[in-house]
Amino acid sequence: MELNRRALLKGSVGILGSAGLTSAQLQDPLPSWNTGPAKQKVVDFVRATTDPSSAKFVPPAERIATFDQDGTLWVEHPIYTQVVYSLDRVPIVVKAKPNLASVEPFKTVMSGNREAIAKLSMDDLMKILAATLTGMSVDDFQSEAKIWIAAARDPRWKKPYTKLTYAPMTELLNYMRASGYKTYMVTGGGQDFVRAYAEQVYGIPPEQVVGTAGGTTYGYDQNGQPFLTKDPQLILNDNNAGKPEGIHLMIGRRPYAAFGNSTGDRQMLEYTTAGGGERLAMLVLHDDAQREYAYGPAQGLPDTKVGTFTQALYDEATSKGWIVISMRNDWKSIFAGGLLLSGR
Amino acid sequence: MELNRRALLKGSVGILGSAGLTSAQLQDPLPSWNTGPAKQKVVDFVRATTDPSSAKFVPPAERIATFDQDGTLWVEHPIYTQVVYSLDRVPIVVKAKPNLASVEPFKTVMSGNREAIAKLSMDDLMKILAATLTGMSVDDFQSEAKIWIAAARDPRWKKPYTKLTYAPMTELLNYMRASGYKTYMVTGGGQDFVRAYAEQVYGIPPEQVVGTAGGTTYGYDQNGQPFLTKDPQLILNDNNAGKPEGIHLMIGRRPYAAFGNSTGDRQMLEYTTAGGGERLAMLVLHDDAQREYAYGPAQGLPDTKVGTFTQALYDEATSKGWIVISMRNDWKSIFAGGLLLSGR
Repeated sequence: MELNRRALLKGSVGILGSAGLTSAQLQDPLPSWNTGPAKQKVVDFVRATTDPSSAKFVPPAERIATFDQDGTLWVEHPIYTQVVYSLDRVPIVVKAKPNLASVEPFKTVMSGNREAIAKLSMDDLMKILAATLTGMSVDDFQSEAKIWIAAARDPRWKKPYTKLTYAPMTELLNYMRASGYKTYMVTGGGQDFVRAYAEQVYGIPPEQVVGTAGGTTYGYDQNGQPFLTKDPQLILNDNNAGKPEGIHLMIGRRPYAAFGNSTGDRQMLEYTTAGGGERLAMLVLHDDAQREYAYGPAQGLPDTKVGTFTQALYDEATSKGWIVISMRNDWKSIFAGGLLLSGR
Repeated sequence: MELNRRALLKGSVGILGSAGLTSAQLQDPLPSWNTGPAKQKVVDFVRATTDPSSAKFVPPAERIATFDQDGTLWVEHPIYTQVVYSLDRVPIVVKAKPNLASVEPFKTVMSGNREAIAKLSMDDLMKILAATLTGMSVDDFQSEAKIWIAAARDPRWKKPYTKLTYAPMTELLNYMRASGYKTYMVTGGGQDFVRAYAEQVYGIPPEQVVGTAGGTTYGYDQNGQPFLTKDPQLILNDNNAGKPEGIHLMIGRRPYAAFGNSTGDRQMLEYTTAGGGERLAMLVLHDDAQREYAYGPAQGLPDTKVGTFTQALYDEATSKGWIVISMRNDWKSIFAGGLLLSGR
């Protein structure tokens, strides 16, 4: 059975798991983090919860760590990657339903006017998401999303979006997994969209992606083959209070560690830290305009409609002992693989 | 890292995992199965999909096996265990809402008239489930369900319901896990109810229980502590077409093997076998009135309102190469641990 047990282990640790750590990384599992309280807190938490002689020891089966994606694991500015995908799909949808060409917000998108598109409200963007991400089979959706994500490029860095993951957070995912934590994505993004690349990019398998989810409808094609069609009906809005609700629905255990970067993650961190024993809650603050972006409006940073980090959230974090990660001060390099800007 | 990797492995394999197999079980992983086509099909499937040199090899990460619970893993007659739990809770609910005492179906339950209670329709039982399984915090629900399941006894066998699991299926769960399969429960039963005991009874952790699920609402108590309240709103009716829909929502991968026992499992088996490569679909037929129960109405067995196995399902199974397991002929013993009737 040994072979199969090893194969199972490899499967559950994932492609970015402990087997991929170099000996330098084993000495310092977080080389892209500067020495400081944020890095120290992570290391202390992992040691305390994985040492069987510690009063704070957590049994392996209960080691759940949840990660927001946009702005926590990869870049979310100027707009969520999934919104770019949806905007790219609008011409396809309008071709299938020509009457949409004269209806807002589709009219604006079809105009190609970049300034006007950038000014679309979140409500407008939600309408576009619903129209472009439903109505097809789940298999077709997966195929199309995989093709798009492989080809699309971020306009600022001219790199695939999947190269815009944060090196310190990739190391953190690996470190948590190597320490027996099951890593979950808990994202406001579409569950099916994120599942199309999460295993390859983060080592997080589809069954560990919790996201905003619509229903599906089971049916049969003309050959009697069954398939699932994506419905516009929303089952889980995985933002704000929807994050702990989604965690209960999909995981059924309270996390011991949770990572986010915006007010949409507040309830997930509250729920996590309200459990007994040692818990870890961290928020990434985007305060590095040179190497990435700077937005808040906490701490006097510029306001934003994407990834808002309010002063109230900052104050709650401070009062509750949650760790705010300063990208500028706590991260030695920003992007994985040193492919982009690093140093400092 | 070796210690932690081993700990992780132990966690993911579960308490009934390969570490618990005796040397006799390693030679024959399915000792409670009689030699025959059903047992042979399981062994052939596992060998073909786990042998890296086989054309039918399935990578460990994709090895998903889904199991219905009631009638597949444990006894469902004369009525689902969860319904017994709900009926037991009716007096508590009526005490809190006295006006329900004069409203059907609660009036019948409160009458204590066993014959009348046994005649309640499935619609009536659903009303009772909704009233008794919602409105409390998820933590309170978990505690109460755990206490009840530890104390309640099946009236025929005078044993805890958790002792009425089928030995051949427990062996199958272990065998699949030892072969690198991630075992999921996909049950029409309440997700939160089943999660209260699935890890202890089946080695299936909460995050691998997919069941009929209501929503929850996030809120705060008077001390500002967050908690989740169970809502009556249904998110997933995990029966019939709801099973593949639930599998997509919660797992996001198509299973390679699926096990059920009634028409409520038909779509799950169709969806599983419609995937490419080698797939395994099996249905337990309750044709053993002496050692357990006999019902269908397939193959001339008595009709039933609990766990219906129609002739149409039997014919679909035959035409599609799904395996129908005869409890009478394929199972050497019925109950785990030889605690109850065994032999033959």
